[in-house]
Amino acid sequence: MADPSLGEFERIARFFAPLAGPAALGLLDDVALIEGPPGQQLVLTVDAIVAGVDYLPDDPADLVARKLLRVNLSDLAAKGATPFGYLLTTVLPMSCGESWLAGFSAGLAVDQAEFGIVLLGGDSSSTPGPATLSVTAIGTIGVGQAILRRGAQPGDVVYVSGTIGDASLGLRVLRGDLSELDASSRAHLVDRYRLPRPRLALGQGLVGIAHAMIDVSDGLIGDLDHLCAVSGVAAVVESVKVPLSAAACAALDADNSLLSLVLGGGDDYELIFAAPRAAEGVIGALARSLALPIAAIGYITAGTGVRVIDETGRNIELAATGYRHY
Amino acid sequence: MADPSLGEFERIARFFAPLAGPAALGLLDDVALIEGPPGQQLVLTVDAIVAGVDYLPDDPADLVARKLLRVNLSDLAAKGATPFGYLLTTVLPMSCGESWLAGFSAGLAVDQAEFGIVLLGGDSSSTPGPATLSVTAIGTIGVGQAILRRGAQPGDVVYVSGTIGDASLGLRVLRGDLSELDASSRAHLVDRYRLPRPRLALGQGLVGIAHAMIDVSDGLIGDLDHLCAVSGVAAVVESVKVPLSAAACAALDADNSLLSLVLGGGDDYELIFAAPRAAEGVIGALARSLALPIAAIGYITAGTGVRVIDETGRNIELAATGYRHY
Repeated sequence: MADPSLGEFERIARFFAPLAGPAALGLLDDVALIEGPPGQQLVLTVDAIVAGVDYLPDDPADLVARKLLRVNLSDLAAKGATPFGYLLTTVLPMSCGESWLAGFSAGLAVDQAEFGIVLLGGDSSSTPGPATLSVTAIGTIGVGQAILRRGAQPGDVVYVSGTIGDASLGLRVLRGDLSELDASSRAHLVDRYRLPRPRLALGQGLVGIAHAMIDVSDGLIGDLDHLCAVSGVAAVVESVKVPLSAAACAALDADNSLLSLVLGGGDDYELIFAAPRAAEGVIGALARSLALPIAAIGYITAGTGVRVIDETGRNIELAATGYRHY
Repeated sequence: MADPSLGEFERIARFFAPLAGPAALGLLDDVALIEGPPGQQLVLTVDAIVAGVDYLPDDPADLVARKLLRVNLSDLAAKGATPFGYLLTTVLPMSCGESWLAGFSAGLAVDQAEFGIVLLGGDSSSTPGPATLSVTAIGTIGVGQAILRRGAQPGDVVYVSGTIGDASLGLRVLRGDLSELDASSRAHLVDRYRLPRPRLALGQGLVGIAHAMIDVSDGLIGDLDHLCAVSGVAAVVESVKVPLSAAACAALDADNSLLSLVLGGGDDYELIFAAPRAAEGVIGALARSLALPIAAIGYITAGTGVRVIDETGRNIELAATGYRHY
């Protein structure tokens, strides 16, 4: 999960990038690629979550476990990799006793079955602070086939899977906001916050097609900005083309100022990717075969940064975007 | 680092072992072995440390970084593996600011150079609790060459490298105890607590020689007990043969009740291994070539558990042993 401090990227660049080996991709890609079995590379990624920072302390333990796994699997999905297994670190306060552990491990079991992965190892410690959970996920991909954040080219179309903004709206619901929505809309948004759907099949299907890809963890615009920065390009996003769920539409109808949250909030774990115009047909076929909507929301240009425009082509100024801790 | 609760192993067996794949070695070995480049296996291990639980909050940041790396490298050493790189998770409170990070990353840089490893990736989050740091270390070893905890056989000699008990005595010094020791003894013990020496060259040299091996993280007797349990054997340790530093001898001379702490305390990160009697000459040559003392401290028998005897062959009853949080 993201660190909240403004200087996160500067901090990585200053303190940690000088320590990185070539397999770390400059610490710009959230994964490492190392030599694997013949013809394969291993894709390694790690994500940590903290109670009260990255999830709500009273979130059900099985859903915490599944989200922990899924945010890591989403990093693998964004490379086009196939998940293999994971290592788990649990640093728990006394309040996480046997019943919490039973729920947590049951959640792991459900998602191991769903995603075909196994536990490889781990460590545990105790803490007087909040529960702190970390997973190192390991996937495989053919040598040279990983889709990186770098590689987007001017003229590429920017696509996004699924719908955007549900997770950050779901967090609002959990905090007691959006009470004007009906119960099923609220439940939909909360589910999207608590249980990401890592787009593994889509990621794998985009190998050889997408020029660059990233998953939406910090927020649509923020993550697209990362992709652009690493690729050395700019992007234009047409606000009206950003795919929204019915629940998110209802929330925006009631309060249009939520647009900044929708475009800037995190935790959707959809995939954003840049692909050449010629791939439109292949991408449409992929969307149909996966029964997963894929929307063209803009395009890559020369320059830097991400510009959001309305249906008349005018710039939309968004309020401060990106992941916010609660 | 070890979890303090009495039920740690039961907890692993009950909640996590059912989730483990074959590469996890039943979660009994602190590492996973997965298929690597041709002829090689990758050795994966993870260790987390928490300020105030696994290290002292005012330990210098560079030494915290180096200890974090080294406890992981020690796990690789215990398999005979060669370290390659690591992923790092930092979950930090606001109090760990730029100067702490500068010290921490400088410590990582020193040990990367010393051990020939690189940073592969990582994650960061924030916490209202204590700093929580985790490393996933990756090493390589020839297929089938890893030395496991299982494999000790009745008749094997039990060896240990270096000296035992220094680290837990060093922690006592940091807590203000052992003031009767001279300054250089106290400094030696503190250094041994803060800066483990992972015995990588020894581990690699024991491939094909040792039947079973483990590093001393929880304590000499406790870790030997793990090795015996997984191997399905028992061990006898002759107390007088356990190698002690001059500083540890001085501490024991002053207070013989510290013997339980020396034999049972953790954090030495030496290697304990079982090897056939016929390997005595090879092991002696290895000790000389590495300029690292290796002591024969006992032997493997049929049965279960670890028995500690004095010079007359009588059992020594130790006070409760194993890792204790402070």
